[in-house]
Amino acid sequence: MALAFHPLAASRVRIAPLLPAAVAPSSSSVAAARHHRRRFSVVVATAAAASASATTEFDFKAYMVERAAAVNRALDAAIPAGEPPAALHEAMRYALLAGGKRVRPALCLAACGIAGGPEAWAMAPAAAVEMVHTMSLVHDDLPCMDDDDLRRGKPTCHVVFGEPIAVLAGDALLSLAFHHMASVGSYPPDVDPEKHPARVVRAIGELARCIGSEGLVAGQVVDLEMTGTSEVVPLERLEYIHLHKTAALLEASVVIGAIIGGATDEQIERLRKYARSIGLLFQVVDDILDVTKSSEELGKTAGKDLASDKTTYPKLLGLEKSREFAEKLLSDATEQLAGFDKEKAAPLLHLAYYIAHRQN
Amino acid sequence: MALAFHPLAASRVRIAPLLPAAVAPSSSSVAAARHHRRRFSVVVATAAAASASATTEFDFKAYMVERAAAVNRALDAAIPAGEPPAALHEAMRYALLAGGKRVRPALCLAACGIAGGPEAWAMAPAAAVEMVHTMSLVHDDLPCMDDDDLRRGKPTCHVVFGEPIAVLAGDALLSLAFHHMASVGSYPPDVDPEKHPARVVRAIGELARCIGSEGLVAGQVVDLEMTGTSEVVPLERLEYIHLHKTAALLEASVVIGAIIGGATDEQIERLRKYARSIGLLFQVVDDILDVTKSSEELGKTAGKDLASDKTTYPKLLGLEKSREFAEKLLSDATEQLAGFDKEKAAPLLHLAYYIAHRQN
Repeated sequence: MALAFHPLAASRVRIAPLLPAAVAPSSSSVAAARHHRRRFSVVVATAAAASASATTEFDFKAYMVERAAAVNRALDAAIPAGEPPAALHEAMRYALLAGGKRVRPALCLAACGIAGGPEAWAMAPAAAVEMVHTMSLVHDDLPCMDDDDLRRGKPTCHVVFGEPIAVLAGDALLSLAFHHMASVGSYPPDVDPEKHPARVVRAIGELARCIGSEGLVAGQVVDLEMTGTSEVVPLERLEYIHLHKTAALLEASVVIGAIIGGATDEQIERLRKYARSIGLLFQVVDDILDVTKSSEELGKTAGKDLASDKTTYPKLLGLEKSREFAEKLLSDATEQLAGFDKEKAAPLLHLAYYIAHRQN
Repeated sequence: MALAFHPLAASRVRIAPLLPAAVAPSSSSVAAARHHRRRFSVVVATAAAASASATTEFDFKAYMVERAAAVNRALDAAIPAGEPPAALHEAMRYALLAGGKRVRPALCLAACGIAGGPEAWAMAPAAAVEMVHTMSLVHDDLPCMDDDDLRRGKPTCHVVFGEPIAVLAGDALLSLAFHHMASVGSYPPDVDPEKHPARVVRAIGELARCIGSEGLVAGQVVDLEMTGTSEVVPLERLEYIHLHKTAALLEASVVIGAIIGGATDEQIERLRKYARSIGLLFQVVDDILDVTKSSEELGKTAGKDLASDKTTYPKLLGLEKSREFAEKLLSDATEQLAGFDKEKAAPLLHLAYYIAHRQN
């Protein structure tokens, strides 16, 4: 198995006991490990190999909880509650502070850390990528798009505030992301935009590029084109959608963090490759979870789900080949982290495993 | 009259013969001057006073035509035609290249010039402000907002491309604006973002601020709140809408150009005041034109229009007081240009008069 010979496999980061905790805090690690195996045996085996002789401690769950809390504080502070126009601010806060795992901000902060910058330097861009992510959810949920009424178990923004406010809240979140990144006040005093303006400009360029016709929007356009057609979406088209709708912003999150943290061009390119792999991995795992979850929920075979309308990796490749693809992507991602300081690489390494093993 | 004693009145810029040409190229300046007087006597008288002893030549029409052509070339080059996703790019190009006077880019370029930078330095931000302006038109025209079918005499974006693409084209234009401003390739070699990154960060912050809950979006939210209510919008509320929907982006256009051109903080603040005055002036003139145009078209008195649903300055203040207000705003704006080099100030001075005297 590729990862067993990977330099990072020898870094003995403690993975197996942590991942279940992050995924299902209330279950025992034994039960959680069984849970994993049932769904995602190959990748779990890989992770187990890496953690077989764990000595280095890294508390991934605590890392994620702390970073999410800090990001939530930054997001909360970025939008005034109650100030006019109140309906707009309320809608922005409703969508932005609805919870979520804050995976993108965590990637941004961790990438800043691996590049050598204190993670705090990347808090402004970390908040910005979450604003962009939220904007894309709000607009994609609109009646004229995916027409979704529920998001994270709550009524979607347009259901609560009406369509016009939902469109405008999305626009405001998008511009706020750039305002936040460009504002001195968003950064700690030792890294305000006036001290590292070239990094900030480059990071803003990365963020902007992943949104429009090279990123989120392009993915949504092609996704909409596929909706309602009875034909099976070819693998190439499916990958285009995922690379744009999902991977582009994950890539930007990592690259922006790396830029702000002072990474060299060569480091940035390695981290970009890491991010592209986990970006696609994120979606492949989503597709696998869709199938395996449905199977359990329905008490029916995965074959039933494969016959459904939605084109997924399991539908195109089969479940086993999808799992192998996921394993390959995880391995590709973690390979890019070799050569970085092992301690500083731990968060990005664990984030890759988390994305591979997550249960929702 | 305030302007008669204004330092710039003594600069003898040639205004009167130029404005009619800019406004109505085919009519003689005498006929055009009469046209002006009929609508906007006080302001015209002010302009006439300033131009009474004109000696300095400034060909405003040629200036605007040249700048618009350069901006259109930049906009055309910024969005690939035919490349996938083709529908998205087509919709973006349809909305962005539909014509228009390119007043905002001209303000941006002129402000860069008055600040001492070659105007070419501001071409990227000038294109960006037009992208933001276009985005706001596309989203404001949506069925769930103002539900407009026509824009500049052509079917609106959602009529041609459908609602989903219109929403997404707006999002893509908004992100493209920031990408364009942050990209080395958008600037001439002597002022790429790597050479003046602090200016670029500050300019991006200005652009971002004028879009969201402190700018365009806030104005549209309050405007929507007023729609359909039978009550007369109070002056304060009307001004809030206009300051946010119209003036904010005009202000950003000027301030961004000044920043890129290397203006001092004190110069930037004077130009900001100039821009705020012409921003409101822009809207007051719009309202006056609405009334006077309707009167001519309908062959009825202005009183009829004043009784219509839409709250306008003439409705709240009366036509004469609105004209006086416009004159005051024009005078306030041009006052801020005193102290700048007269030749470099000519484009912004003429832009103020143009905004005051325009016929559409």
